[in-house]
Amino acid sequence: MGHDSAGLLADEREIAYWDDVPGRTRGGRDVRKLPKFAPGGETRRDPLTGQVVVIAAGRQRRTLSSAGGDCPLCPSRPGAPSEVPAAEYDVAVFENRFPALGGPVGGRCEMVVFSSEHDRSVPELPDVRMETIGRAWADRTAALSGLPGVEQVFVFENRGERVGATLVHPHGQIYAYPYLPPVQTAVLASARAHLERHGECLLCSVTAVEAAGPRVVASSGNFVAYVPEAARWPFEVHIAPLSCVPDLPSLPDEERRELMLLYRDVLARFEALFPGGPTPYMACWHQAPVRHRDVLNHLYVQVFTTRRAADKWKYPASSESGAGAFLNDVLPEHAAARLREAYGKRER
Amino acid sequence: MGHDSAGLLADEREIAYWDDVPGRTRGGRDVRKLPKFAPGGETRRDPLTGQVVVIAAGRQRRTLSSAGGDCPLCPSRPGAPSEVPAAEYDVAVFENRFPALGGPVGGRCEMVVFSSEHDRSVPELPDVRMETIGRAWADRTAALSGLPGVEQVFVFENRGERVGATLVHPHGQIYAYPYLPPVQTAVLASARAHLERHGECLLCSVTAVEAAGPRVVASSGNFVAYVPEAARWPFEVHIAPLSCVPDLPSLPDEERRELMLLYRDVLARFEALFPGGPTPYMACWHQAPVRHRDVLNHLYVQVFTTRRAADKWKYPASSESGAGAFLNDVLPEHAAARLREAYGKRER
Repeated sequence: MGHDSAGLLADEREIAYWDDVPGRTRGGRDVRKLPKFAPGGETRRDPLTGQVVVIAAGRQRRTLSSAGGDCPLCPSRPGAPSEVPAAEYDVAVFENRFPALGGPVGGRCEMVVFSSEHDRSVPELPDVRMETIGRAWADRTAALSGLPGVEQVFVFENRGERVGATLVHPHGQIYAYPYLPPVQTAVLASARAHLERHGECLLCSVTAVEAAGPRVVASSGNFVAYVPEAARWPFEVHIAPLSCVPDLPSLPDEERRELMLLYRDVLARFEALFPGGPTPYMACWHQAPVRHRDVLNHLYVQVFTTRRAADKWKYPASSESGAGAFLNDVLPEHAAARLREAYGKRER
Repeated sequence: MGHDSAGLLADEREIAYWDDVPGRTRGGRDVRKLPKFAPGGETRRDPLTGQVVVIAAGRQRRTLSSAGGDCPLCPSRPGAPSEVPAAEYDVAVFENRFPALGGPVGGRCEMVVFSSEHDRSVPELPDVRMETIGRAWADRTAALSGLPGVEQVFVFENRGERVGATLVHPHGQIYAYPYLPPVQTAVLASARAHLERHGECLLCSVTAVEAAGPRVVASSGNFVAYVPEAARWPFEVHIAPLSCVPDLPSLPDEERRELMLLYRDVLARFEALFPGGPTPYMACWHQAPVRHRDVLNHLYVQVFTTRRAADKWKYPASSESGAGAFLNDVLPEHAAARLREAYGKRER
């Protein structure tokens, strides 16, 4: 759906390609001998918090970080087959070999490879590639939203070993959850209360206030990037459309391009924040839930890091992990100023 | 209240001591010149999740890990004053010099030092010290519960650099939150629903099921330690009384002793889990909220680690931190078996 080429991996997982320039045919035969793809796992409900936890014991054996030679995301070469059976590609999407979702759990986990070049980062990608990534994300969001039982399509990138990225090759992931995750459940409740009280979309109200406030980091015609007033993390930015847009598939090509370039700009600011190496980040696309769009219909992107200084990190310890109580050591207004200034510090 | 001696530090923070053997008088004069103690910070409410975030920018300058010589938790020596102006002590409790709570935020943060010996860990402490720690926690819980505006007294220990412990000297902390934190808010809602539906305390029901199930790790007459069915973390244990006990002050001395020894046993199992050094852990005492005890009146202790194998760690990345969706790679039944076997592996 929407992709430029598609195929199957040796264990019958699906793979698809999106190209910067149309007209290419990607993909060769995956020559590996792989055991049959059979995601295990189960969901259990925590009776104390009421929240779902996915138990996915099969993932303990998953591939860890690789320095280059045997990277599973690099293009396959003769004698060195990878997860991507193509000699070259722009953007490749395939089912995660060690998924937390899928099988008896329901839902699906996908890998999204942003470049065939092992040592790139998203801030280094050209405009056209950002467009291609946006198109791939939009197509996959539309397809995954239509799978039975899927409640939330969550596009994300964990960048840097420090935030658990087990592969350095530039890539993100998509989790199509078969349940509404806790954060989205909480936002939905807030959106419902706000709609009932004020007759307005919660995100529209918040975005309008932030767009006129002191914590704006960057903006374009239809989107604004800001540090939220009650940021949980030392450096955290939300990027949101000024008007109601539920998800990536709903954006006209030109606006999606605008958003992707602003997104890259924000990631570049994060990377440039501190001397001593790029700042690891997590980037989460909070698209509107598949259902409940009468109440919550407004996309936002959340980019954050656990780094609070060049050599200091925020550890989500007992207060955050045990009580859910976030303590932020960096004043959001200060973080916004730092992120505004970060641009240009980094060689591009 | 309940302590054996008490005094003031140079900046007028309170300090108190609890002794293994009664009749001692602890404490000397704090000779340091310290700036006036004036906690800053503020609370802000995240309009998306509805949750409170504490912004405590003053903490950026707080003391980091120290190897021994200038440890702020070791006893003060002539020419080397520490946070504890006593030549020796058993358990010392004082207000955190860099608190996230207090001042305009409300509430209070306290440090609890478990031993004057720098290189001890809780599993190494003798029975009598566990009793003294339990007594100090109970006394502080009672005192902090009576402070204006305090909604939750949260006793915890972050052990190991990997979970953000900035000091190696054996210590824990107490946060007296001026609001009900998100996890306790969620548990309260579940407890209310359970009470309405079944006429029974939620924790009583859960504990009874777990105590008779396959995930028990250890137990004593009045308490059981088990891996919860929907554990969020690779290794997670809950310790709970079999009948309704709201908090540490409510326990008779003999039962509090029993609980403290079972708690130490569980921590020892965590430490012994893997070769290559003790396993870092977080230990959170979920006492009943100060209010709402008609609905939620049952203490439990949560001990967990982000370590999932000798050289593998669970990173709370985008799914956990962005969506609140926990994916656990270790089957809880397997974790329980590992923790049952862990005892005795470690030299004591």
